[in-house]
Amino acid sequence: MPHIPLPTHLPGITGLLEYRRDTAEPIRALTQLILRGESSLTFAERELIASLVSHRNECQFCSAAHSAVTDLLLGESTTCALVRQDYETAPVSDKMRALLHIAALTQQNGRFVTDTAIQRAKNAGATDREIHDTVLIAALFCFYNKYVDGLATELPADPAYFQQLGERIAVSYGRRAEGYSEK
Amino acid sequence: MPHIPLPTHLPGITGLLEYRRDTAEPIRALTQLILRGESSLTFAERELIASLVSHRNECQFCSAAHSAVTDLLLGESTTCALVRQDYETAPVSDKMRALLHIAALTQQNGRFVTDTAIQRAKNAGATDREIHDTVLIAALFCFYNKYVDGLATELPADPAYFQQLGERIAVSYGRRAEGYSEK
Repeated sequence: MPHIPLPTHLPGITGLLEYRRDTAEPIRALTQLILRGESSLTFAERELIASLVSHRNECQFCSAAHSAVTDLLLGESTTCALVRQDYETAPVSDKMRALLHIAALTQQNGRFVTDTAIQRAKNAGATDREIHDTVLIAALFCFYNKYVDGLATELPADPAYFQQLGERIAVSYGRRAEGYSEK
Repeated sequence: MPHIPLPTHLPGITGLLEYRRDTAEPIRALTQLILRGESSLTFAERELIASLVSHRNECQFCSAAHSAVTDLLLGESTTCALVRQDYETAPVSDKMRALLHIAALTQQNGRFVTDTAIQRAKNAGATDREIHDTVLIAALFCFYNKYVDGLATELPADPAYFQQLGERIAVSYGRRAEGYSEK
């Protein structure tokens, strides 16, 4: 049961965005810019960061939703699962591994992002903007996770929900299955 | 030294909002609605939540900035200091104490907000909307704190900065010193 009355047919964040529509507008705008705006990080890479952070915050709704999107964008479900298990050994590029590490540190506390973690990302070819955006995505998903779980929003009754939500979000990305390059 | 090149005359969040202006816009809009929009929580009560969360995340910039604003709105600096020390014994109303507790739980993890914590707030007279907004403020400041610290933004060189920033923000509130009612 959610802590406040929310529309029962709108699980997770969707009910909250309906509950207070004025704040929903900039939240949606920010997400759109961060995840779908111009970036040298692919859509899948950004979703992978969102998925890892949500997983580490144990936010079931966001974690399931953004893993579904990542899988659809990559066209496979192994990479995301392995990243969530241990990004240090997962089949991603060195740059992406270093950025996922920065995201994981930010998820704990921003102060934990060390010069060493930043240098590792720079050595692997990450730009300042990619480092900035990684921290921003991680911070945004901590916001989402706390908002969604702090009000005890419900999970969808139908297990097919996340697949359908993922499809809808992937369509909003232009359904550009990007695949994942380790290069 | 910040992890990415930021304008040196703009410490904390201010440099980040300049670094990426497109995302700054919805971040500013969301903050405006949450902290300064219509609410049955006073400006000072909302700033007190922001200050407590930033303090618990050990985000020096946000913590100093929002404590300064809270003090200016209350017209004294005791309440905010005592809330940060221990809100359970601080001179605030039972409703505010219960909401600060929800904010403190959200700061740790949204899943930690228990039915008991919610019931306590409701028993003390908190509305659903006040509970919602408390979680939203706490989540937003976790976002801010992680963004500000994850990129190692600098503190201002001049210690008078926070007083001046607080004055500027207090002016944006219409400099309405509200005082704090324990009733």
